[in-house]
Amino acid sequence: MHVSFSPEEIIQIVGPIGLRGSTSERVRGIAAINAAETGDLTFLGSPKYKSQVGGSRASVVLLPEDFEGDPAPGQLFLLVKNPSAALATLCARIEHSLWPKPEAGIHPSAVVAPTARVAASATVGPLCVIESGVIVGERVHLQAHVFLGRGVRVGDDCWFQAGVRITADCEIHERVRLQPGVVIGSDGFGYEFTGGRHEKVPQVGCVIIEADVEIGANSTVDRARFSRTVIGLGTKIDNLVQVGHNVIIGKHCILCAQVGIAGSTSLGDYVILGGQVGVSGHLTVGRGVKAGGRAGIVTDLEAGMFVLGMPALPHILEQRINVLRKRLPDLFKRVDALETLLVELKKSSAG
Amino acid sequence: MHVSFSPEEIIQIVGPIGLRGSTSERVRGIAAINAAETGDLTFLGSPKYKSQVGGSRASVVLLPEDFEGDPAPGQLFLLVKNPSAALATLCARIEHSLWPKPEAGIHPSAVVAPTARVAASATVGPLCVIESGVIVGERVHLQAHVFLGRGVRVGDDCWFQAGVRITADCEIHERVRLQPGVVIGSDGFGYEFTGGRHEKVPQVGCVIIEADVEIGANSTVDRARFSRTVIGLGTKIDNLVQVGHNVIIGKHCILCAQVGIAGSTSLGDYVILGGQVGVSGHLTVGRGVKAGGRAGIVTDLEAGMFVLGMPALPHILEQRINVLRKRLPDLFKRVDALETLLVELKKSSAG
Amino acid sequence: MHVSFSPEEIIQIVGPIGLRGSTSERVRGIAAINAAETGDLTFLGSPKYKSQVGGSRASVVLLPEDFEGDPAPGQLFLLVKNPSAALATLCARIEHSLWPKPEAGIHPSAVVAPTARVAASATVGPLCVIESGVIVGERVHLQAHVFLGRGVRVGDDCWFQAGVRITADCEIHERVRLQPGVVIGSDGFGYEFTGGRHEKVPQVGCVIIEADVEIGANSTVDRARFSRTVIGLGTKIDNLVQVGHNVIIGKHCILCAQVGIAGSTSLGDYVILGGQVGVSGHLTVGRGVKAGGRAGIVTDLEAGMFVLGMPALPHILEQRINVLRKRLPDLFKRVDALETLLVELKKSSAG
Repeated sequence: MHVSFSPEEIIQIVGPIGLRGSTSERVRGIAAINAAETGDLTFLGSPKYKSQVGGSRASVVLLPEDFEGDPAPGQLFLLVKNPSAALATLCARIEHSLWPKPEAGIHPSAVVAPTARVAASATVGPLCVIESGVIVGERVHLQAHVFLGRGVRVGDDCWFQAGVRITADCEIHERVRLQPGVVIGSDGFGYEFTGGRHEKVPQVGCVIIEADVEIGANSTVDRARFSRTVIGLGTKIDNLVQVGHNVIIGKHCILCAQVGIAGSTSLGDYVILGGQVGVSGHLTVGRGVKAGGRAGIVTDLEAGMFVLGMPALPHILEQRINVLRKRLPDLFKRVDALETLLVELKKSSAG
Repeated sequence: MHVSFSPEEIIQIVGPIGLRGSTSERVRGIAAINAAETGDLTFLGSPKYKSQVGGSRASVVLLPEDFEGDPAPGQLFLLVKNPSAALATLCARIEHSLWPKPEAGIHPSAVVAPTARVAASATVGPLCVIESGVIVGERVHLQAHVFLGRGVRVGDDCWFQAGVRITADCEIHERVRLQPGVVIGSDGFGYEFTGGRHEKVPQVGCVIIEADVEIGANSTVDRARFSRTVIGLGTKIDNLVQVGHNVIIGKHCILCAQVGIAGSTSLGDYVILGGQVGVSGHLTVGRGVKAGGRAGIVTDLEAGMFVLGMPALPHILEQRINVLRKRLPDLFKRVDALETLLVELKKSSAG
Repeated sequence: MHVSFSPEEIIQIVGPIGLRGSTSERVRGIAAINAAETGDLTFLGSPKYKSQVGGSRASVVLLPEDFEGDPAPGQLFLLVKNPSAALATLCARIEHSLWPKPEAGIHPSAVVAPTARVAASATVGPLCVIESGVIVGERVHLQAHVFLGRGVRVGDDCWFQAGVRITADCEIHERVRLQPGVVIGSDGFGYEFTGGRHEKVPQVGCVIIEADVEIGANSTVDRARFSRTVIGLGTKIDNLVQVGHNVIIGKHCILCAQVGIAGSTSLGDYVILGGQVGVSGHLTVGRGVKAGGRAGIVTDLEAGMFVLGMPALPHILEQRINVLRKRLPDLFKRVDALETLLVELKKSSAG
């Protein structure tokens, strides 16, 4: 982040209710209260860190309007309704300078089929490849080295970063963001075993990515055997995630990094899967299910469940088992002792 | 899948033994019996779904020749020897239109070293890079953005999708399919720890991919330290799989998504590894071994074993343990009760 | 590896103290003692394989100077101070021919912004994209299809293989090696849930990769929310690893394949994480911590700990639990038997 804002610019961006103190430093970074240095802006996001404000070395501090206390010399307090929201406003401004709106148009090094239809407001970056029959919507930005196969449709305001690859006939709706190296529409993994060999089952379906989806770097989404693999509206997917063929993911789900979902499974809306979670094929995971990191889902799950472990169990049971697991060495000793005692008792009662 | 076949075209492709009913709808999709809509073709793949045929809204249904029952109005039944095989014939036809054979030749935007030898029947797509000494066989198709390093050899009829990267001196045999973003020949992960630092051990071997292998999107196969990493004939590898240096994978294996195999391990023929399985380094996994999803193989395994869990155990033992695991809270209570009882008994017997 | 050295060239490269026997074979490969064939060079890396030297079919064998025994006919023994070091010298020579120093300069097919500053000694390979404000240091080699976003800085002697992508404002220090498909600076995975939707939290920080780092194929490192994600000096990262936003990794760490580290976690120096390890967010993992393959770290760990399992436990405890786990079926039977016995005892003592 190469940030440089004068105190006056910061004031103009966040529009504070009140000011205390002053600084001559330009803001060159953002940091947590206790990590901030001279030239940084920080913010009080939660009242529990209130006591740290006094010792912060930040040059500018965003604080709630009812904050009591005075800035150090050379420090500027900005009192705002909501420090987190004020920070978000500032970050959005920084993001805008980090990723400035590119000029519309097709870079001369891009290879675009004559039958592709690219909106005049779209930007096709250097060395992209757009095959025949592709439709690219308004204000779409293809950064560089992006590949769109035959007949791909890209909705308005999509942003595909460098090296995104979308294979033939897939459909991407509006405002989808794909991080570098994402692959959409790779063949599903389907074979029939005949004559000692695995014969490929043609994968002739496609992938539909609904609006407002974001997919992380180098993640992969397979095309359906026939029909469609679907990622629902507003779902967010992290890096290195695998989505198998014919998977249907609901709306507003969260899939953390390195999750894998096997073929033909469906996830309801608002499902949250922690990092490295695996889901077997042909399952139904209900609306609002949560699975902790590394959970392995191998059965259908009813709506609202919270599961952990492999195979995944209700989280309270799994947590209980994890506590008891550590006491297994002790348990074995206790059972040994019981057996010894019982032998003695039997002897003595028989005697 | 942008399918559009008239009923007459479908009849011509699948060659039915008998017909019942008729439809005026064009076939625009394929779907399961209970999911099909007007305009879809469906099929009875297994007798257990026979009762669903009556309620299906599909416009065309592939059925076994001995099927009894009549189509709904506007519905066409096609009686065939084997509905699944008839569907496969149709899908192969769709696949052909999805991935039409490209014209042979080198796209003008590709960068091909003068010493590379590309067969006249091969297709080198836009923006590919082919370095010196590369040999590309007959009818090979490099889709786009493919990189072939110095001295790479590619056998006849290979198909590499967009963004495949093969580093120097690796060898790919006939009919290999690589999905987008596959990396073959990245350096093996080898370091010697000396003087407080990890010094790189040069990785100067290569990778051999035998014939009829398929590798999924963004998977990676490391080059050997010296000698070779080998993927055996007919083996199929899913997305985001990691194969370490000097690994030898046998023939006709199946590696599901996100599997990782550490260096110098060898897998016999017909090994099947479920999703997210991990295999430690320097192991020997016997012919026909099966490992369920997420298994962690940390010891050699004899031919034919079926393992589950981490560390992997024979599947029957692991399944038994998983049942008992859930009863651990109960077991601890039972042992508590036994101890209490025994204390009482001891007291009373001593009394 | 396409190797071909005459015996004389081998002698010149390794500089042996003594010779025994002779061969007319050129060295065309390197292999382990028991796997070597005619035309291979092998070496005695450890005294425990001494007995295998006699039966080796290698044409050239590197041996310690005090080795006793004579070569077979047509076999050449080279006596050296340290056979492993001699082999390393030879491999470095092979590596040099595998990856020859390319000529400096910018390939005419690369797209380089006029405001980028590329050192005259650097090599920018075919079809690379370098955006505005980028700085590329001395002797840097960008192989092909590399993308450097706005303002990226690349230190001297870096080597980025095909398809590496670095997004805006990230900073790479000296001698960093990035394998094919690495993504640096993808957006961190941060959303706020408001109004039934996940709203993106702008990710406006950057990534710093310190000197002598190596990162494996298709691995991903996310940019910070604000401030920096850092990979420390000399750290080595394998393939398909995910590093979340705001993670700080210390110096000289080892992260094996498919490791995932969630946001805001910090690792001390010399941490070693086995394959497929997962680390939760906002944790502190102490200096020198070791985690075995597939460990799941969900709590802070003190310096020097060695952990296994999920959730990760001290390795001795986890190993003990893994032994006892297999005896759970037996334990349940023993407790059943105890209960039966106790009922009998109670009856008889009551009788």
